[in-house]
Amino acid sequence: RIKASGLKLRFCTNETQATREQFVRKLQGFGFDISVDEVTAPAPAACRVLRERGLRPHLLVHDDLIPEFAEIDRTNPNCVVIGDAADKFTYANLNEAFRVLIGLENPVLIALGRGRYYKETDGLKLDVGAYMKALEYACDVQAEVVGKPAKSFFESALAELGVEPQQAVMVGDDIENDVGGAQRCGLRAVQVRTGKYRPSDENHPQVKPDAYVDNLAEAVELILQQL
Amino acid sequence: RIKASGLKLRFCTNETQATREQFVRKLQGFGFDISVDEVTAPAPAACRVLRERGLRPHLLVHDDLIPEFAEIDRTNPNCVVIGDAADKFTYANLNEAFRVLIGLENPVLIALGRGRYYKETDGLKLDVGAYMKALEYACDVQAEVVGKPAKSFFESALAELGVEPQQAVMVGDDIENDVGGAQRCGLRAVQVRTGKYRPSDENHPQVKPDAYVDNLAEAVELILQQL
Repeated sequence: RIKASGLKLRFCTNETQATREQFVRKLQGFGFDISVDEVTAPAPAACRVLRERGLRPHLLVHDDLIPEFAEIDRTNPNCVVIGDAADKFTYANLNEAFRVLIGLENPVLIALGRGRYYKETDGLKLDVGAYMKALEYACDVQAEVVGKPAKSFFESALAELGVEPQQAVMVGDDIENDVGGAQRCGLRAVQVRTGKYRPSDENHPQVKPDAYVDNLAEAVELILQQL
Repeated sequence: RIKASGLKLRFCTNETQATREQFVRKLQGFGFDISVDEVTAPAPAACRVLRERGLRPHLLVHDDLIPEFAEIDRTNPNCVVIGDAADKFTYANLNEAFRVLIGLENPVLIALGRGRYYKETDGLKLDVGAYMKALEYACDVQAEVVGKPAKSFFESALAELGVEPQQAVMVGDDIENDVGGAQRCGLRAVQVRTGKYRPSDENHPQVKPDAYVDNLAEAVELILQQL
């Protein structure tokens, strides 16, 4: 319905446990009309930064994400890229990433997100942000976050759409990464009361969405009504 | 020589990969006149805090340290104690400690130190402080550190000696945990240029030792001379 109305549409994800191809296939399976070139994701954003600055990463990421870095030179690394590596967050792998970082004259740590934790069927899991903090502290360095809620992430999505922040609406379930991040970049933002949403979000000390909706269909309705 | 001079002596360690028994046996092997009741260490300090506040810990510590907590009730945990767990810092174990902490109404995280990293024969390793930061961030909680450089740690050592801070001298190789911690507690502190010492410590922005010595024997000499 969004596409049929003539509005431009872009999918913004912090997914770093899969390539965009895998992510798109999953959403297509749910019936979404979506293709890879409509997706803004942290890994391609990181690749852009790496290329621009001549950085060769040591990757501490999920195995399924590695294809996104296929065209990046990874020999003799001069930075570390950290994503949600999940089971790959072993003691040995963390020490290895730490040693690369501490051995650099100008340590650069690029984080594909800053999430604290997420829920899976078998329980809560620490997210990339926690491990990012561990490396930040050990190396006395500040990570550069390229996923949501980084301003550069939303700016990149807007550039890809060819619109100004005030012409765009962000729809998401995460009060800080989706709503807060988009608003700081000048977009309006609608929080969906599904997924990661919790009732306590409505009392968030810093972030107040421009609107709430109960599900994605209602978000589409709201946007089309207000055209 | 210190003991023979009539001075009181206490060994202050952040060692959390072994019980005090194991630690003392190692130093005895090097020829030190030392017994367990002369050692101030983080685990007994943590046990004191746990007992005083009726806390039942979930332990994320090295296997060899667990006997130090033998007399502590660990059923139905209402806090997490984190030490340098080394190989036990697995993804699964960190998630488990995290779930205990995030499930508490008043999350309490007790850290047996806040070291960033240390060196072993096979390379640099992340220390307890890095993993403490990961849990702090994920749970939005501030850890209580019971090892060096915590003031309570030095106060406890002084109480065990029965002396005032200004009557005591701390000798150590760690500019922040030994020298800085002791000085903030009112002791004088001598840095030994061995072990963890690095020449750049002498330009530390915050901490300036009262004296430097090249080795422990020289520290003893200095202290006995100035009596």
